[in-house]
Amino acid sequence: MGPARYEVASIGTVRSPLTDRATAPKQGHEGSPDAWLEFVPGVLEGLEDIRPGDQVIVLTWLDRARRDVLRTHPRDDLANPEVGVFSTRSPDRPNPIGLHLVEVLSSDGGRLRVRNLEALDGTPVIDLKPVLPGALDG
Amino acid sequence: MGPARYEVASIGTVRSPLTDRATAPKQGHEGSPDAWLEFVPGVLEGLEDIRPGDQVIVLTWLDRARRDVLRTHPRDDLANPEVGVFSTRSPDRPNPIGLHLVEVLSSDGGRLRVRNLEALDGTPVIDLKPVLPGALDG
Repeated sequence: MGPARYEVASIGTVRSPLTDRATAPKQGHEGSPDAWLEFVPGVLEGLEDIRPGDQVIVLTWLDRARRDVLRTHPRDDLANPEVGVFSTRSPDRPNPIGLHLVEVLSSDGGRLRVRNLEALDGTPVIDLKPVLPGALDG
Repeated sequence: MGPARYEVASIGTVRSPLTDRATAPKQGHEGSPDAWLEFVPGVLEGLEDIRPGDQVIVLTWLDRARRDVLRTHPRDDLANPEVGVFSTRSPDRPNPIGLHLVEVLSSDGGRLRVRNLEALDGTPVIDLKPVLPGALDG
């Protein structure tokens, strides 16, 4: 019997000028362009309390990543010694979930304009969470 | 056509004295007992660089949560006005992914002993990530 499996559903999509993993920033604050998050109609009620200026944690499904990688060179740099993927933020990992801290710039119906998102155009969004003091703030 | 769906695989399991959502702490630093993360053999190579003292972000699949909830009273307290789930850390949300900041106390083969985890016993673990300065540190 293999490990249990669960189904994650896309709640939205990243719209960004970034289209190429090789040239995209490794982390959101490393020069990412502003991006839109476009949500599916079925989840809009859950977004109603997100406001411009909010810091929001975005979870994505990194659909262009490899899931069979357990060790990697951090930042795709061969000069860095290979380490276990769970000690890195590499997209290549058994469950390719991206974790991004963004700032909401504006909202527009089913979309949020955000700053500091390094995810590629077309990446599925799977969750949004608030930043909580003490819970995941450092 | 509905939203795209992806398959997430359990990489391990939480072993904790916490068994009841009603009495469990709402956040890890609010009085959680120490817990173990037990990993499946297939991912152990990816864990080799995690050390006691490390701060680690644990992602879980909150398998006892409801997925049809879009608005909720924060902290399950009816005195708090109802808000969209994406402005809360409620387990009840379209994709019930838990995000936990823990400290590694020790490691033992395929297990990590951790501090500050409020997830219930038996909860599937789906990813581990390092805390990165500037990336998701506040």
